[in-house]
Amino acid sequence: MSIQPITEAMLRNVIAPRLADSHKGTYGRLTLIGGNAQFGGAIIMATTAGIYSGAGLTTTITDPANVTALHTRMPEAMVVDFNNQAKLKELVRGATSIVVGPGLGNDDQGLRILKDVFEVVSEKQVLIIDGSAIDLVATHSLMLPAAKLIFTPHEMEWQRLSGIPIAEQTVANNLQAAAKIGGIIVLKKHHTQIASDGQLFENPGGTPAMATGGMGDTLAGMIGGFTAQFADTLGAVLAAVYIHSQIADDLAHNAYVVLPTQISEEIPWYMKQYSLPKTN
Amino acid sequence: MSIQPITEAMLRNVIAPRLADSHKGTYGRLTLIGGNAQFGGAIIMATTAGIYSGAGLTTTITDPANVTALHTRMPEAMVVDFNNQAKLKELVRGATSIVVGPGLGNDDQGLRILKDVFEVVSEKQVLIIDGSAIDLVATHSLMLPAAKLIFTPHEMEWQRLSGIPIAEQTVANNLQAAAKIGGIIVLKKHHTQIASDGQLFENPGGTPAMATGGMGDTLAGMIGGFTAQFADTLGAVLAAVYIHSQIADDLAHNAYVVLPTQISEEIPWYMKQYSLPKTN
Amino acid sequence: MSIQPITEAMLRNVIAPRLADSHKGTYGRLTLIGGNAQFGGAIIMATTAGIYSGAGLTTTITDPANVTALHTRMPEAMVVDFNNQAKLKELVRGATSIVVGPGLGNDDQGLRILKDVFEVVSEKQVLIIDGSAIDLVATHSLMLPAAKLIFTPHEMEWQRLSGIPIAEQTVANNLQAAAKIGGIIVLKKHHTQIASDGQLFENPGGTPAMATGGMGDTLAGMIGGFTAQFADTLGAVLAAVYIHSQIADDLAHNAYVVLPTQISEEIPWYMKQYSLPKTN
Amino acid sequence: MSIQPITEAMLRNVIAPRLADSHKGTYGRLTLIGGNAQFGGAIIMATTAGIYSGAGLTTTITDPANVTALHTRMPEAMVVDFNNQAKLKELVRGATSIVVGPGLGNDDQGLRILKDVFEVVSEKQVLIIDGSAIDLVATHSLMLPAAKLIFTPHEMEWQRLSGIPIAEQTVANNLQAAAKIGGIIVLKKHHTQIASDGQLFENPGGTPAMATGGMGDTLAGMIGGFTAQFADTLGAVLAAVYIHSQIADDLAHNAYVVLPTQISEEIPWYMKQYSLPKTN
Repeated sequence: MSIQPITEAMLRNVIAPRLADSHKGTYGRLTLIGGNAQFGGAIIMATTAGIYSGAGLTTTITDPANVTALHTRMPEAMVVDFNNQAKLKELVRGATSIVVGPGLGNDDQGLRILKDVFEVVSEKQVLIIDGSAIDLVATHSLMLPAAKLIFTPHEMEWQRLSGIPIAEQTVANNLQAAAKIGGIIVLKKHHTQIASDGQLFENPGGTPAMATGGMGDTLAGMIGGFTAQFADTLGAVLAAVYIHSQIADDLAHNAYVVLPTQISEEIPWYMKQYSLPKTN
Repeated sequence: MSIQPITEAMLRNVIAPRLADSHKGTYGRLTLIGGNAQFGGAIIMATTAGIYSGAGLTTTITDPANVTALHTRMPEAMVVDFNNQAKLKELVRGATSIVVGPGLGNDDQGLRILKDVFEVVSEKQVLIIDGSAIDLVATHSLMLPAAKLIFTPHEMEWQRLSGIPIAEQTVANNLQAAAKIGGIIVLKKHHTQIASDGQLFENPGGTPAMATGGMGDTLAGMIGGFTAQFADTLGAVLAAVYIHSQIADDLAHNAYVVLPTQISEEIPWYMKQYSLPKTN
Repeated sequence: MSIQPITEAMLRNVIAPRLADSHKGTYGRLTLIGGNAQFGGAIIMATTAGIYSGAGLTTTITDPANVTALHTRMPEAMVVDFNNQAKLKELVRGATSIVVGPGLGNDDQGLRILKDVFEVVSEKQVLIIDGSAIDLVATHSLMLPAAKLIFTPHEMEWQRLSGIPIAEQTVANNLQAAAKIGGIIVLKKHHTQIASDGQLFENPGGTPAMATGGMGDTLAGMIGGFTAQFADTLGAVLAAVYIHSQIADDLAHNAYVVLPTQISEEIPWYMKQYSLPKTN
Repeated sequence: MSIQPITEAMLRNVIAPRLADSHKGTYGRLTLIGGNAQFGGAIIMATTAGIYSGAGLTTTITDPANVTALHTRMPEAMVVDFNNQAKLKELVRGATSIVVGPGLGNDDQGLRILKDVFEVVSEKQVLIIDGSAIDLVATHSLMLPAAKLIFTPHEMEWQRLSGIPIAEQTVANNLQAAAKIGGIIVLKKHHTQIASDGQLFENPGGTPAMATGGMGDTLAGMIGGFTAQFADTLGAVLAAVYIHSQIADDLAHNAYVVLPTQISEEIPWYMKQYSLPKTN
């Protein structure tokens, strides 16, 4: 089994220059769901990343306690109460990409919301399952919906989801489990690996300066924003993973720790570079 | 029918140097109305643009849910609950320019508020009808008030307002519809067109990096801020449209996507340039 | 009657280098009171200016609706509900300088609060009466307390306070009225004038780019911060007035309009310059 | 008794380069407790400092009134209501380092919370006792728990805690009292002194530009963040004290007053410098 490093050429294929005669509808509708009373910051960070990634229209469905903080940081987002079941289903149905899980919590409330998402999502939609949502899927052995599924576990979450203990998370074992689960698996670790359809990609970058809370929420939001815009879903995932750590690597030259929101603010500049014709 | 490009000379005629012996009252009272519980960000972005455009005094009338986020981002704005009908009418009556619609929502609440605005606005006031307010006018065939009306539809909203399908939105058809509706029409699209009194202007700039939620709210706020200050209403509209996209074009040299609030922060610098004597 | 321009030499006498062996208690306790539900931004801006001016400890007493926005923008401030009469009186009693009025409102609530302040303030304290508080004093002919009073009216507020119509606000008339009212009068206008004990000072700077809402609140907060630190009250007022407009003048080289909060952020740098030995 | 100055060599021994194959769990769990309705800013500033110091996971337990401001400024923090006793105990038990006291208040509510912390903290945990918590310990002669205790009093708080009047706070007296109390004492003053196990260290830096509210909260948060990451607790304290004032000294070259939150934002850059191999 060969492991393919993510390359800048792959990014250039995905992040195309935008067409002059386009509008916000062209760049997809992103719906993010998460953020209970304790973990509201997670969905704020995911939303921030999604918007800086260039999604056309972004709506965040969260605990009402988080609305003011979200509006203050990112007025670009629309916001809906995650207790409003009808509205939640409507916004999931209308989305190009859905991110569920950042700060959702793995209690009954979180479970109820996740089931609602699974109930209405459909085949052509991208569904990113992150954080608490991974735990809920593993704990309750939830039946997965028909959609373009993307999982973003770290090693402990992957252990819960795949049943493979961290020490036994070899390439062969991981690919086998990924094939069984289906969809794209983004296994977050030192040199993050992405499994899809029997292929395995590895992210060449990454820095321990990223080892702080919220970094995964930011990646989930980026994957949401990239997949909302780019039809090549696997390519969008690889690009998001690569740029996420590339920004951190660059910031870490001057910083002992890099905060998640610092990464988000840099996304548009990095995307621009990959959209330009390559110069020698 | 000839189309006139907006030129920098037009802007220099409008954006005059401020007189030394002036005060905030000299630069108009701007009242913005919108932002329901789901779309609060829209009125925050419009308010931000209005204040950075230099309106003398700015009051925002919105859902109480948005007050804290608005105060946090823009303490320069005064804020009133949009359920307070008496206060709303008082602040509309006292305004130089009124922006109604960003994030207002096209439900019964939005309709009630819009009708209140239409009831008290008068001939010498500028009234910018944006977003949900355009939909409400179209859906309910509302009688338009006697005021200096400015509509800011995108192509789909223009279809609803004018009855002309997007594919048939030719210059001739648009001008005919605009004449019937009255006021100034800002048709937002690739190379935005402005129709006024049988004349048609076209914005030479614009970039697909602007194709993200909130860009229109920002333009509506800018038009509000410009018309509050400058007596030449058409000139103020042309200047706002031109600078809005010029800032985006400049930022897009280094960014794949430009966020609406990033544009607002640059407005004072661009206005300054046009207010200075031209150098060769 | 000769008018003395404020000079940089005056500022250098006031803004002394801080002593190495000092602590926050050395730089005074500043209490600001204002900000009702509609005008919350005013007290936020005044507080911001007071803190950036270097007051040792700052407490803001305001409508509870403003607490979150205030904490978000300036966590350095302590906050108390202005309906808590006992706490309000305690914090006024313990203050070095008090600013009352920004966004207070001139209704019954504002009047009740202002009377509470007047009741407990004492002779050694500096009391800055701004905005709504000036109107309330004028409308209700309130008896002024024994304190180091500073009034900060613009021309219309001065008309209400002094009874002199704007057109008749000559130097002679103003000084006569100021002497009758007592304290220091900061008459805000193009080239702001400061009357104190029969002397008249004039601010050489100022720009129409400052003509926007919140600029006066910012000046009131600066005067609060300066008088909390510097024993020479008149000198502190002159320094605050001068630096407030000097920052605006500098920013206005590149900006058509200068926002009040942009001024506050620059205060520490300007104060530093005046505290350093003069270089030729 | 010799006094040892803190040296940069000491910092280099503590702030090691992060290992490539590490994750957020490697850098500790930091729990901060404080911030009542009046002093919410204190816990926000402490949290900010803890996160910029690189703690792996940070949770803040505070009055619900502070949640939105905290989420807005630092979405990286998780937040829990300090009235939720069960959750508070769970989060104290699971922490690597605990900071208790910033803005807690010294009333019954504060006392109840402090007692809960003392009840569940255990020997291997670092407990930083700051601000109101020091007053409560002194006033109520609370029995101290078995933990790695760190006290961060200023001179007046030290007087209350040790019983030594400020004028008699000599090195000998302080060390004797420190030995009796136990743990590490950070006595904040011009050239802050740190007593531990009969040793006395002195901070060579510091500037009166730091003499403003919130500076101590920021230091407490830094000590929390440093001790959560670095096993050498005394070394972590010395490094935090040194960097805190070093940043202020550098900023004070250009600023008459330095705000606490300005210091926090610079922490990652300074830590990075000490983690790099020394160059000549």
